[in-house]
Amino acid sequence: MSVLFFYIMRYKQSDPENPDNDRFVLAKRLSFVDVATGWLGQGLGVACGMAYTGKYFDRASYRVFCLMSDGESSEGSVWEAMAFASFYSLDNLVAIFDVNRLGHSGALPAEHCIDIYQRRCEAFGWNTYVVDGRDVEALCQVFWQASQVKHKPTAVVAKTFKGRGTPSIEDAESWHGKPMPRERADAIIKLIESQIETSRSLDPQLPIEDSPEVNITDVRMISPPDYRVGDKVSVALGCASRGRTIAFASTFAAFLTRAFDQIRIGGLSESNINIIGSHCGVSVGEDGASQMALEDIAMFRTIPKCTIFYPTDAVSTEHAVSLAANAKGMCFIRTTRPETMVIYTPQERFEIGQAKVLRHCVSDKVTVIGAGITVYEALAAADELLKQDIFIRVIDLFTIKPLDVTTIISSAKATEGRIITVEDHYPQGGIGEAVCAAVSMDPDIQVHSLAVSRVPQSGKSEELLDMYGISARHIIVAVKCMLLN
Amino acid sequence: MSVLFFYIMRYKQSDPENPDNDRFVLAKRLSFVDVATGWLGQGLGVACGMAYTGKYFDRASYRVFCLMSDGESSEGSVWEAMAFASFYSLDNLVAIFDVNRLGHSGALPAEHCIDIYQRRCEAFGWNTYVVDGRDVEALCQVFWQASQVKHKPTAVVAKTFKGRGTPSIEDAESWHGKPMPRERADAIIKLIESQIETSRSLDPQLPIEDSPEVNITDVRMISPPDYRVGDKVSVALGCASRGRTIAFASTFAAFLTRAFDQIRIGGLSESNINIIGSHCGVSVGEDGASQMALEDIAMFRTIPKCTIFYPTDAVSTEHAVSLAANAKGMCFIRTTRPETMVIYTPQERFEIGQAKVLRHCVSDKVTVIGAGITVYEALAAADELLKQDIFIRVIDLFTIKPLDVTTIISSAKATEGRIITVEDHYPQGGIGEAVCAAVSMDPDIQVHSLAVSRVPQSGKSEELLDMYGISARHIIVAVKCMLLN
Repeated sequence: MSVLFFYIMRYKQSDPENPDNDRFVLAKRLSFVDVATGWLGQGLGVACGMAYTGKYFDRASYRVFCLMSDGESSEGSVWEAMAFASFYSLDNLVAIFDVNRLGHSGALPAEHCIDIYQRRCEAFGWNTYVVDGRDVEALCQVFWQASQVKHKPTAVVAKTFKGRGTPSIEDAESWHGKPMPRERADAIIKLIESQIETSRSLDPQLPIEDSPEVNITDVRMISPPDYRVGDKVSVALGCASRGRTIAFASTFAAFLTRAFDQIRIGGLSESNINIIGSHCGVSVGEDGASQMALEDIAMFRTIPKCTIFYPTDAVSTEHAVSLAANAKGMCFIRTTRPETMVIYTPQERFEIGQAKVLRHCVSDKVTVIGAGITVYEALAAADELLKQDIFIRVIDLFTIKPLDVTTIISSAKATEGRIITVEDHYPQGGIGEAVCAAVSMDPDIQVHSLAVSRVPQSGKSEELLDMYGISARHIIVAVKCMLLN
Repeated sequence: MSVLFFYIMRYKQSDPENPDNDRFVLAKRLSFVDVATGWLGQGLGVACGMAYTGKYFDRASYRVFCLMSDGESSEGSVWEAMAFASFYSLDNLVAIFDVNRLGHSGALPAEHCIDIYQRRCEAFGWNTYVVDGRDVEALCQVFWQASQVKHKPTAVVAKTFKGRGTPSIEDAESWHGKPMPRERADAIIKLIESQIETSRSLDPQLPIEDSPEVNITDVRMISPPDYRVGDKVSVALGCASRGRTIAFASTFAAFLTRAFDQIRIGGLSESNINIIGSHCGVSVGEDGASQMALEDIAMFRTIPKCTIFYPTDAVSTEHAVSLAANAKGMCFIRTTRPETMVIYTPQERFEIGQAKVLRHCVSDKVTVIGAGITVYEALAAADELLKQDIFIRVIDLFTIKPLDVTTIISSAKATEGRIITVEDHYPQGGIGEAVCAAVSMDPDIQVHSLAVSRVPQSGKSEELLDMYGISARHIIVAVKCMLLN
């Protein structure tokens, strides 16, 4: 990631008028450090979320610093964050562009053309300083000036050289990501040490902690939370990053595919972010395939420890939101567009990893597993089959991950090993495959999966459910076929 | 998507000095059309690919026009494309920003502040015009001027009003994506018709077709293709979009997660793009979890009709590239970082959907299915087990999608229904689940899946394969366990 530059932050209240104190010496030492970046282009969005939280939720004086490489700024996500920060007047945010000219595979397009970075930052509404990144006094000065600027975030465009001061390494192209040979490293360390002007340890003034205390554990909600941070997922990750807010980011589930890298890195970082994806599957209807999320379950299932809720009605959706707010780690809630009938009473209790068995009797012959919109199709199929004296067990998964393997296997055993899964999602990485994998070592269980197996067209919701093979009618056919085998 | 504005392109060679000809009348009619956009933020990248192809591959005179909404320009992918176009001096590209102030959920941050758009376009190196989007003469003039500009792409920032000229609808917030009631629509159509100044049909001059003829079918390659368009996936989609080039986009597979939306839309558009993802799985080694693609198979498996190659050695990789170059639809080639031993002879033939059975004999007790790096682990396990008189069948999948179900099931039947899958990927949506789903209706087949089931740490490649349970040692244990059951 871009380095969230808390280190420099500690100096913000020092006196820039006196250049002879220790912090300059330390900063000089720092100027030799080659800063490692990764999670390319996502740090500034996270920093925006932290600064937004500081300014608007905490109303505290802390400032957020984000150090980025020049190569990183070719990522579009940086410019989304730049626009966000100026729109929300995040004057507690400083972004430092470390313009060292070199990227992973050689020189970058803008090389050392500092004015290109300057113009872009200014055009995106940032108070912008250009500095020599080796000039510690100048750096301290602009950090101080930035703290006096109101209503605008500050960009510091710093011209630097990789390996500065090291003969035959400075500004050379072949050192990215390469370890320094031991013998050369020793010489370089000596060279740096020879330039340190004091051996006194530094005792910088700590920033004032004036954030209000917050307690976001065991939150009980009467209604779903009403603050959202739009679809800026990096920003929401930043809001969630210090345990000061419960962040919910919400958009069409299909649009979350463009945040897959942010989601993936959020997962690696064990972020507590909650993401709501609406308009899933062909049940979206007329909007067409580009708006229908048919791969979102596959995407979120790959995130380690991510909890995936797929509530069916209003009651279970409210419980999903409440459970997500209190859960550790990332949560994804997949919601359905069409209005669905309430099927749970207000007293129903929901738990993560606990499926609901909606229909069952001793004569059940097949277990039908649905979630969201397909639960209604499964219930309609059960009603119709009942008239023909065919009994099926109907399960509403509620959480896709973790999967309620116990209920699935016990239901399968009770229905002679027969499972049918039905989902408004592509087959790949979806509910069917999750169930197949969960029972794959059990030789007595067969799984037949109904899913959307081709690119859907636009149409009415109920017509599309039928056209793509996941309606009550298709469940009935699948049940009868399975019983014939 | 942003509308790739071929329609306007047809007028490029008309004479703007004569404002009295028919095209202005038609354009006036067009100015009432509410342009539909979607695939938010991806059109300009595609247009860049088309313009790059026109300028550098075809060296032809055709020009590319891309119409975007103002809301769309808040997408970072637009600014990546803006930087790309100016860096490559795409003077055959015109982007029109339709600044109508309104987005899906109300007013946009920049509203009608045209100068914000102008400054941003200029800062990104574009020749920029600001026009009244209702002034057809002005529009024609800037399109003409743009054709005379050398070395820079042109941005036309057009101030417009949604529903212009329609009482109580013009510039109003509540009409986005809403159908017009029938009775109002009739009145509006009459209003538009009353403003049409001629009934003569238009006969615009067609552009000169001076692109060279190309034939990219049945391409035979002696070595892998050597042109790549970096990791700008939208751009590569544009290059591939008119059947004039065989586009290969290549980057670390982990970074492809940030292009998931582009990949998804490319799939819906039946793009012929080929994508190569390197550095997959824990076998990447020291670079750590953020660089290891462990979800890419799940991602590409959800793309309808996408072919997924996972070659093992240099020979099969070369064949994968050659097959991908000739295949219709999107192809993904997953490649491995560590050097792997060549296991196929130059004469080996490869086909899409055809797995290779590398070890087999009549005494085989378990089928072990690998791909890429895990094939070597399976072979090593087979060698070791052979010493203990345990025979296993080893399959190299070569293509993950389509899956060679015939070979998998016949091998399973020949090994008493026992399958072990082993993959350098998370379990979700990966090879194991694909195999489980393929055999889920066969009660006599059991599948045990070995995959990376938690966030990996950094380390040596071979150590990590063992630490996360996908090494030869773990395969040997799994085989023995399966035989005990």
